[in-house]
Amino acid sequence: MRPMFEGLYKALYPKSIAVVGASNNPAKVGYSALKSVLESFRGRVYPVNPHADKVQGLTAYKSVRDIGERVDLGIICVPAEKAVEVSEEAAEEGFASLLVMSAGFRESEDERGKRLQEALASIAKRHGVRIIGPNTHGFINLEYGLNATFVPGLSGKLRFGGISLIGQSGGVCHHILINAVMEGTGFNKVVNLGNRVDVDFPEMIRFLAFDRTTKVIALHVEGIDKGREFYEAVREASKLKKVVVLKTGRSKIANRASLSHTGSVAGNYEVFRSAMLQAGVAFVESITELMDLSYAYSTLKCSGVKGGGVALITLQGGVGILFSDVLESKGGRLAKLSDKTLAGVRAVLPPRTFRENPIDVSFMGLDEDVLRSIYRLLLEDDNVSIIVLTYAMAPQWELSLNIFEERAVKPTILGLSAEPDTIRRLRTRLEGRGVLVYPGPERAAVVAALLGKYGC
Amino acid sequence: MRPMFEGLYKALYPKSIAVVGASNNPAKVGYSALKSVLESFRGRVYPVNPHADKVQGLTAYKSVRDIGERVDLGIICVPAEKAVEVSEEAAEEGFASLLVMSAGFRESEDERGKRLQEALASIAKRHGVRIIGPNTHGFINLEYGLNATFVPGLSGKLRFGGISLIGQSGGVCHHILINAVMEGTGFNKVVNLGNRVDVDFPEMIRFLAFDRTTKVIALHVEGIDKGREFYEAVREASKLKKVVVLKTGRSKIANRASLSHTGSVAGNYEVFRSAMLQAGVAFVESITELMDLSYAYSTLKCSGVKGGGVALITLQGGVGILFSDVLESKGGRLAKLSDKTLAGVRAVLPPRTFRENPIDVSFMGLDEDVLRSIYRLLLEDDNVSIIVLTYAMAPQWELSLNIFEERAVKPTILGLSAEPDTIRRLRTRLEGRGVLVYPGPERAAVVAALLGKYGC
Repeated sequence: MRPMFEGLYKALYPKSIAVVGASNNPAKVGYSALKSVLESFRGRVYPVNPHADKVQGLTAYKSVRDIGERVDLGIICVPAEKAVEVSEEAAEEGFASLLVMSAGFRESEDERGKRLQEALASIAKRHGVRIIGPNTHGFINLEYGLNATFVPGLSGKLRFGGISLIGQSGGVCHHILINAVMEGTGFNKVVNLGNRVDVDFPEMIRFLAFDRTTKVIALHVEGIDKGREFYEAVREASKLKKVVVLKTGRSKIANRASLSHTGSVAGNYEVFRSAMLQAGVAFVESITELMDLSYAYSTLKCSGVKGGGVALITLQGGVGILFSDVLESKGGRLAKLSDKTLAGVRAVLPPRTFRENPIDVSFMGLDEDVLRSIYRLLLEDDNVSIIVLTYAMAPQWELSLNIFEERAVKPTILGLSAEPDTIRRLRTRLEGRGVLVYPGPERAAVVAALLGKYGC
Repeated sequence: MRPMFEGLYKALYPKSIAVVGASNNPAKVGYSALKSVLESFRGRVYPVNPHADKVQGLTAYKSVRDIGERVDLGIICVPAEKAVEVSEEAAEEGFASLLVMSAGFRESEDERGKRLQEALASIAKRHGVRIIGPNTHGFINLEYGLNATFVPGLSGKLRFGGISLIGQSGGVCHHILINAVMEGTGFNKVVNLGNRVDVDFPEMIRFLAFDRTTKVIALHVEGIDKGREFYEAVREASKLKKVVVLKTGRSKIANRASLSHTGSVAGNYEVFRSAMLQAGVAFVESITELMDLSYAYSTLKCSGVKGGGVALITLQGGVGILFSDVLESKGGRLAKLSDKTLAGVRAVLPPRTFRENPIDVSFMGLDEDVLRSIYRLLLEDDNVSIIVLTYAMAPQWELSLNIFEERAVKPTILGLSAEPDTIRRLRTRLEGRGVLVYPGPERAAVVAALLGKYGC
């Protein structure tokens, strides 16, 4: 890692962690934060609590001054006023980085919060200690095995994968991670920036652009302060990694709430959107799209898809119609199949099925050979860039997934109406072959449209 | 039931059923159809198969002529040509109704299919036997406990409820039912009309309008033939029941596929949409919206919501912003809270939270008394018509669901990021109190917007 990221690197890959405000009381953030660290981290851990001798079985320190080590990461879980005081001490003791979970800074209604945030900014500036937050839910580094959030259990349940998420809102990150656990989406690093007193989007984006195991940078943005720097960072990052951006705070009231939430102005949505498109990133409109397109990019190995047509194989004609509607409404288009493909499809399917695109294989979908020969025709058809299969999942149809014998040379998407645990199981089984699995035909159609639009 | 629906009533509430093409081979539709009936139905069942003495343990009949009873419902699972022949015989034997699952009629590419469909139409006309289908996935009558589809196991897994679905596509019905099983959405009757040779939308809509236990009529339409009659039926039905309509076949290619799928022209989407809005129904844009709004209507008891504002209580500010964006993009609006409500909210929440709408309760969400007092303030605020809570589901937060002690006098929606089995469990627990549960904040926002738009 380059020296410019030294402090940030020590925050994300610490060898020692102090939890200030560490607690034995399960209702406290300092309890959950320490628990997360102890569950996941193998380095040295120092609980700091002036009122306890032991915290969660470990000897507690009265203050950060008592530790006697230049700790890599301090996690601060005490009230805002105290957090500033402790941060100053930790900086003086040579801590490399601080993760300030405490709320009550720029996002609060009173002037006091703004003053405290300025004090925190000044500490970072004077001492060179890197500060993530305040008002953050923390971060997870699955590559390193560290859960530095106040949600214990997350790192054990999440799969490791190529998506790194930088989120402004801890709540939105949390919703995404719950879905990731359910559906088996692999994450790499998840960083919630909170009020961004020091570590901000541009630097974090650049850090991930050079991060070896990150394949996709997913961004959830509410509002930014340094527009030009942000733009340059995503433009450069998108040359090295796939970048997917969701901007919330589009509505008027949301803009106001955003000011309170992480103390930032949401800004003009359309201006931001145009800038992002110009910077070469994929711009999405919901957390579901952010998750689903990021998953696609983290799993696929392909190129030249942009603008390409989509071919659908469906076991149910009505679902093909539904799929086509959603695809078109999101700006995607169905491929016009080549004469060779059409002739091939007609040779294996009876006339009572729909033998154009979408190809309604009906009950022939149970015949693995028929399905495989259609899939191969589509792989060879230059008019087809993306192939989708939709199923209402029945156990016997799982047999037909054998048609994906080797790594797909074109993005292949399964849209299955099935429980999340089925989705999770099939993702684990199929993602090595470049096959994407999503719940239901509607989400599959949106991903196909986005891949067609933004390429891969 | 009125005499006009006599044949249709006997189809949906039969005392005796013959399955023609009943089979011992699990790969055949006639196997699955008989299995579904035997699993769910307590009346007399007659398997018909000229080549077997016993089918699935029951004595088989060589032909419908051998049964010697005026059977209420004949389920036909033999190839199209044979299906016409058997239907004629059954009609002559005095069968009250036929469910023709066989494909290869108007939807197939060749002329033969069209001819066979005309022959089937003529049988219905000449004999007065009511025919559902052909090319249908069948129907389920959960009120009566009958699964007359070729998907065994469905009636045992589905919850009984107030939603009756009339679908043109078996595949779309199947996708909806898989989700209904996962999420615990209660259904009443689900009828897949297929090619509509006799029983068509208008009659089925009227039937359900007078059906005592149906509260919501959900329609999935690909294309219709008798526009005026359809319009009158939904207009009249919407005076008695909630009607929710999804029209697929919006895109050009989908329109072509529709012609093949159930042999109907999709028609102009905008014309259809305007007509539906004029008829007073709720018009939705995806199967997710069809399911979610239908569930809301089947669960709520309320009136005067139309145009009303939405109040959101969230434990996470960023989710409030996301919610507001989705709400506004679907035409909903956040309520302007009364001065009394604002004063009350400010009295119980600390200033570091967002104390307007959306109300970000942050960690105070763990305090049941705080949450209850805010909820009560919103129930009393005339500016608020719909109340939503969003959670990233953590076990300890489930305690706060105790705030819903009695039946909610305003539509109350929970948007939880949680596994479907949690959604299902909470639906069962809360729907008696008029509280709706959906997975995630985005689906909750869409339902809130639709309820605001179409009223309840």
